[in-house]
Amino acid sequence: MHYHVKKSLLFAGALLVLDGSVAQAQVRRKPKPTPTTTASAAPVAADRTDSLALRKIFDEALLRGESYANLRYLTGSIGARLSGSPQAQLAVDWGKATMEKAGFDRVYLQEVMVPHWVRGAKERGEILGNKDKGIKVPVCALGGSVGTGGKLKAGVVEVHSLDEVRNLPEAAVKGKFVFFNRPFDDALIDPGAAYGRAGDQRRSGAIEAAKRGAVGALVRSLTSAHDDNPHTGTMAYDPTVPKVPGAALSTNAADQLSQLLKANSDLQFELEMECVTLPDEKSYNVVGEIKGSKFPQEIITVGGHLDSWDLAQGAHDDGTGVVQSMEALRLLRASGYQPERTVRAVLFMNEENGTRGGNEYARLAAQNQETHVAAIESDGGGFTPRGFNVDAEPAVVAKVARWAPLLRPYHAAEISVGHSGTDIEPLKAAVRPKALIGYDCDSQRYFDIHHTAADTFDKVNRRELELGGASMASLIYLLSKYGL
Amino acid sequence: MHYHVKKSLLFAGALLVLDGSVAQAQVRRKPKPTPTTTASAAPVAADRTDSLALRKIFDEALLRGESYANLRYLTGSIGARLSGSPQAQLAVDWGKATMEKAGFDRVYLQEVMVPHWVRGAKERGEILGNKDKGIKVPVCALGGSVGTGGKLKAGVVEVHSLDEVRNLPEAAVKGKFVFFNRPFDDALIDPGAAYGRAGDQRRSGAIEAAKRGAVGALVRSLTSAHDDNPHTGTMAYDPTVPKVPGAALSTNAADQLSQLLKANSDLQFELEMECVTLPDEKSYNVVGEIKGSKFPQEIITVGGHLDSWDLAQGAHDDGTGVVQSMEALRLLRASGYQPERTVRAVLFMNEENGTRGGNEYARLAAQNQETHVAAIESDGGGFTPRGFNVDAEPAVVAKVARWAPLLRPYHAAEISVGHSGTDIEPLKAAVRPKALIGYDCDSQRYFDIHHTAADTFDKVNRRELELGGASMASLIYLLSKYGL
Repeated sequence: MHYHVKKSLLFAGALLVLDGSVAQAQVRRKPKPTPTTTASAAPVAADRTDSLALRKIFDEALLRGESYANLRYLTGSIGARLSGSPQAQLAVDWGKATMEKAGFDRVYLQEVMVPHWVRGAKERGEILGNKDKGIKVPVCALGGSVGTGGKLKAGVVEVHSLDEVRNLPEAAVKGKFVFFNRPFDDALIDPGAAYGRAGDQRRSGAIEAAKRGAVGALVRSLTSAHDDNPHTGTMAYDPTVPKVPGAALSTNAADQLSQLLKANSDLQFELEMECVTLPDEKSYNVVGEIKGSKFPQEIITVGGHLDSWDLAQGAHDDGTGVVQSMEALRLLRASGYQPERTVRAVLFMNEENGTRGGNEYARLAAQNQETHVAAIESDGGGFTPRGFNVDAEPAVVAKVARWAPLLRPYHAAEISVGHSGTDIEPLKAAVRPKALIGYDCDSQRYFDIHHTAADTFDKVNRRELELGGASMASLIYLLSKYGL
Repeated sequence: MHYHVKKSLLFAGALLVLDGSVAQAQVRRKPKPTPTTTASAAPVAADRTDSLALRKIFDEALLRGESYANLRYLTGSIGARLSGSPQAQLAVDWGKATMEKAGFDRVYLQEVMVPHWVRGAKERGEILGNKDKGIKVPVCALGGSVGTGGKLKAGVVEVHSLDEVRNLPEAAVKGKFVFFNRPFDDALIDPGAAYGRAGDQRRSGAIEAAKRGAVGALVRSLTSAHDDNPHTGTMAYDPTVPKVPGAALSTNAADQLSQLLKANSDLQFELEMECVTLPDEKSYNVVGEIKGSKFPQEIITVGGHLDSWDLAQGAHDDGTGVVQSMEALRLLRASGYQPERTVRAVLFMNEENGTRGGNEYARLAAQNQETHVAAIESDGGGFTPRGFNVDAEPAVVAKVARWAPLLRPYHAAEISVGHSGTDIEPLKAAVRPKALIGYDCDSQRYFDIHHTAADTFDKVNRRELELGGASMASLIYLLSKYGL
């Protein structure tokens, strides 16, 4: 590929400082959207001061960004850090030390008790057909599952939904594994939507299976990739229903099992897992704060989750969100901006299997009668920026959308109505922030590696990661300066 | 990460068929841009027929797309395919057979003579300091370079621009290697712009070096990555200036050489390359065509280049553009659409070191007095779609931009003014198409692997690739239906 001509962004109000030498777009600018409400403090879209401030933030991120080096340490030197593990505690210590070193005004911990589930040494699955020799397949226990108590051997009944198992005659299920094999819907443009639609099998499969007398649940991994990685993730139990083990099969293994079942519906599956839930452990959210110069009582939160699943390094889930959140505060400082409102980076503990950290952060916010303007969460990977999902009243969403022209030069201008994030969601009931905002990045590769051993540092691109932190810092700059 | 809520796209006119169940956006729609010209044939942005047609195209691509399997074959079974090589001929045969199998109305070759440069077996670079032991560093010949004729040992003078070498006293350069070490400007948001700005060192470094009496040019690889991959790429000679060898150093090697030069400006570099230019070879563009039902004389071209550099599999450069171009035509057919205008997929030969195929395609178009409505090129990698760069009169750009709402559900709605592509550029002077259009995808990872041995199939994500082909097919659908 050759590049000859510097392109200019069409319709971009913030062109003036994009990459220095950009010519005016050749065609008419898009008319500014008329606000649906009179937003007195909102800037004009092409405000030159704001445009320059954002450019400074992005320069700092791209030339001297620290997210990538921080992520290398978190994933490489600490690694997997499931709630309650010694590595989770190392991550807490590291997060605190890193923010103290960055010189934030205040760095502190919020104590919280978290679940402590341990996978155990043995984890094995085997398809036993007519032949003497079984076929070993990649499996992993779902987070929170009980163990099998030795080898668990049983027939298999394949279903594609929770309803299907509810409607099967008990005789067809009793004493068997229920094999939930509904795939991702590949036609959905956003793989997150496919994850949402397939996810009930993993979360509630073991409950519905046990209700019909099954001995366990085998669940197709939640991904559209075709490979040998089993994807873990949290599963639930119902106190009124017996606890049976839940395991994920890789998609290749699920396809193989389904095919073999068609040829021999009497085949058996042998599962052995030694996972166990231990007593809750003490852990912490890590909070770093820059005090607002004009409105110190008004708080803007930005966060990601510090815990990860145990199989992986937790690079994209959610090491990237953690380092970007800390970096967002550093970028504001380093680019010479003193926030008018108080900005907090929060490294939440226990998003993956309990949301205890998120709940505790909200509980303390309410208890301390804090005023929260907005909260931003990054928990969709560290891929190339797209924009933000805003969960707010329409007038507030429109206000955020008016800043889109400032973000357009950075390809981070897609402002959508949508879900923000699991860890900041509890703030809604607790202190009613005006907006909950999810950082939105390209998601096509995310579920290839999500909750697997393949979620490693090498999957993260330095520039994509740093651009994400800069996008978040830019939105915080605007939120801090103008409020909502 | 958890996903709870299906998000809806804000301001999207084409929401009605996005992923089936999307609720109306909660806030006011963005006003449609008023056209700067009266474009009678242009559709209303939210036209339901068009919206459904695009949805069908994307369904076909995501559920039954063939780009990924085609790319696996091209990169894995054929591999590197520099112009004039036997593999380039295999790629021609494969492209023709693939389009014939797809059942296009007409598949044919356009003969063209191409350069035939061969790297040769030996390629070696070594820094020779004060110590007896040299330091071997990763180097590769730049495409088109002459060989060194055995070992070439000389001192090194480091510069950062062509002007700097022009302004050096001849005594400082004569008999030495000129080492061009200007890095990518990491602050630029689009790495393609950084490539454009650093590229003169590679293209013209050997000419400027030879003018001052240098024995060769060593060029820092054109990338912002810090690694051990040397990046090849085309270089030029001036018939009035002696031909001296040009080689790329990996960025790590360039940093190391620069550091060692600071300590010892008298160090020497030894380069050995056996590359040679052989007589031109006969080769071909491969063309597949679906005849227009209403306006068969009006042509829309979509293409990528079939040749690649010799170091790599040519996955992102430009295997992805090749398979997407063929797939775009297949998607139109498979989704039940019969184009009103004639649509051509063109697999151009020799983009990398001569553009002979692109020039010949344009020459034949003029000779045959063809009418070209538009041409689209995909040569920026097969990453997640962003939109299109349009090189056209302002009124025509505005017309394309009016289709953005239809592309927004697929995150392919960023319509920019900019360069289209090297292979379709010659059409401009030859037949004046109304628009030359470059497919624009996320570019952050592209120059990490561009022109290196790391440009391999595993770097391509299936969904990103298929979404790109569908985006191109969608634009062709609109161009074919409405013209420009």
